[in-house]
Amino acid sequence: MAAQSSFAQKFTDQVLGTIREHDMVAPGHRVLIGVSGGPDSMALVQVFMGLKKDLDIRIGLAHLNHMLRGGHALADETFVRDFAREHNLDLVVERKNVAEFAREQQLCVEEAGRNVRYDFFNRVACEKGFHRIALGHHQDDHIEQVLMNFVRGTGPLGLRGIPPVRQKKFIRPLIRMSRVDILTFLDEINQGYRIDGSNADTSYLRNRVRHCLIPFLEKEFNPDIKAGIERLSGIIEQEDDFLDRMARTALENATTSRQKEQIDISIPAINTLDRAIGARVIRAALLSVKQNLRRISHTHIRDILYFAGKKGESGKSLDLPGQIRVYRQQRNILRIKKEATALRTLGRHHKTRRHQNAKTDENPGI
Amino acid sequence: MAAQSSFAQKFTDQVLGTIREHDMVAPGHRVLIGVSGGPDSMALVQVFMGLKKDLDIRIGLAHLNHMLRGGHALADETFVRDFAREHNLDLVVERKNVAEFAREQQLCVEEAGRNVRYDFFNRVACEKGFHRIALGHHQDDHIEQVLMNFVRGTGPLGLRGIPPVRQKKFIRPLIRMSRVDILTFLDEINQGYRIDGSNADTSYLRNRVRHCLIPFLEKEFNPDIKAGIERLSGIIEQEDDFLDRMARTALENATTSRQKEQIDISIPAINTLDRAIGARVIRAALLSVKQNLRRISHTHIRDILYFAGKKGESGKSLDLPGQIRVYRQQRNILRIKKEATALRTLGRHHKTRRHQNAKTDENPGI
Repeated sequence: MAAQSSFAQKFTDQVLGTIREHDMVAPGHRVLIGVSGGPDSMALVQVFMGLKKDLDIRIGLAHLNHMLRGGHALADETFVRDFAREHNLDLVVERKNVAEFAREQQLCVEEAGRNVRYDFFNRVACEKGFHRIALGHHQDDHIEQVLMNFVRGTGPLGLRGIPPVRQKKFIRPLIRMSRVDILTFLDEINQGYRIDGSNADTSYLRNRVRHCLIPFLEKEFNPDIKAGIERLSGIIEQEDDFLDRMARTALENATTSRQKEQIDISIPAINTLDRAIGARVIRAALLSVKQNLRRISHTHIRDILYFAGKKGESGKSLDLPGQIRVYRQQRNILRIKKEATALRTLGRHHKTRRHQNAKTDENPGI
Repeated sequence: MAAQSSFAQKFTDQVLGTIREHDMVAPGHRVLIGVSGGPDSMALVQVFMGLKKDLDIRIGLAHLNHMLRGGHALADETFVRDFAREHNLDLVVERKNVAEFAREQQLCVEEAGRNVRYDFFNRVACEKGFHRIALGHHQDDHIEQVLMNFVRGTGPLGLRGIPPVRQKKFIRPLIRMSRVDILTFLDEINQGYRIDGSNADTSYLRNRVRHCLIPFLEKEFNPDIKAGIERLSGIIEQEDDFLDRMARTALENATTSRQKEQIDISIPAINTLDRAIGARVIRAALLSVKQNLRRISHTHIRDILYFAGKKGESGKSLDLPGQIRVYRQQRNILRIKKEATALRTLGRHHKTRRHQNAKTDENPGI
């Protein structure tokens, strides 16, 4: 990229703006870039190659061969290997039969692929001393994610879409750039890429959102709907961060004891909170005990708040997915605990209420 | 409704639950019910007739003849008149040529109709001493409103949809009941209603959302999408209320002087706030000066925050729609003011930045 044309320069500058806005990297960092060979990751590598001196960072590549789509996956791998050799970049490649793994773990292929990929990136970063893992998600991915979550029945968290930075480790410098801009950029700098044939398969929810829902909304309702969704998710992100910080503080103040897989919270402290914060405190407490919020819905959280607020429930308990049980203890304490034994067995000794068929709204899915 | 069947009783009980949850009426109240003659308002009147003893309220009806759709509008009026006479209910009828009014005011017919209707209800309530105005909006209206706002590019406020209570005056007791339940209720109690032919006209955005978008989403993405949207708007409502209360307090603390159509705010007080609250404080300040947020977008609010945070801008100003101007005064004061003169004239004396083409995202439209 010695002689960049004006579009490519502007593109790079905009990505630099996103990197700076979110403090994505610091001087001296080593950044591992996840590279599939598709346009997004190839653009990401090229941008980083152009910025690495300015940012004072070193970069390396990681490629996971999912062993899906037969010879295509091998051709992707070869493409990435050739690129790395040509540009003298460090590259780690791993192969994993994702379809087989999905069957073993009873996951859908997308979810299995995601798990395997993130696990691989994490492992390489840890072993080779990378400070950050950069991924090629862009603005259209983000908008599609918000819409996917919306049609699946998300809570406000799902409307945040794809976070620019996650766990202070995963960074997404292209998150404000559109798919069209990425292709124009690649075209201008004459960088080739591989095309993933499964992108056109509308049996995947994401592809149906991309190829059916968004064009329908743009044509019939609002040609600028993408900009509207981007703006909405930005406001939600800001407000969500703020409410989360408030809830974390409130949880610390309300916690009377904390052990591994168990937390005790003062019921009067919970009941004096605003309902909006109360719900977030319970969610944060569940997260600290359960380590994730899979299969936990807003209904569960509301039921816990109701259970906490009700008189005469001392000694009773409430069952939640993931072997989580909520007890009302003496001295106005709410105990959230992960049970070692299956709840079915425990249930004999406790009067419990069971939840069924509750949908999670807390998994943004990226 | 002497002998209510079980469905009608359950329906009435659920509406009573909504009335109590939101403190919609108090004993001794007089409630004016807006009646078009359609299923929603007829169900609303019937429910109130069944509950008026329990709630210790008196009811009256108001009907606006929009003089649209020729003879249909007159037949609606006659239907409502006959119903009121038959049930010995007070009724106020008014006729207004809404199409003509829309042309005069350069409004679309829906907006003109809405303005004329609310103005009429307010006037009757005021003249005849009604404490509340009850409207027939129901769950499907609410969900359609959320989706309409979403596709138009709303902020979080638009996701709240239709508020169950507005200005402590307008109440919507059917807001948790579905259209299907309302029709079943009317069928069971054998209450007839008029059908509005314009409901099928898909040139109206609301009708396209109802007849095209929702069925498409239900069929292709999620049969339970209505429940998801209802849940989302409930959470947003709770969090939005909380953030609004925080922002109102923060604005009071930051205000150094307040006059008619002008407010002075301490810039350091604004700059120490979290960005999420800062934006809401500015919005509340604009609302207090401008009396509404028409044509004000989140971009304007963000620009004001940026303008407030920037050094060396003292003496400069920022133009907003509705003859609103924001000044950075001496002693770190931000002044938001409604100008009597057109901003074009003022602009000569001030270095200003102009906004163009900004869309409001703050009008839930009901």
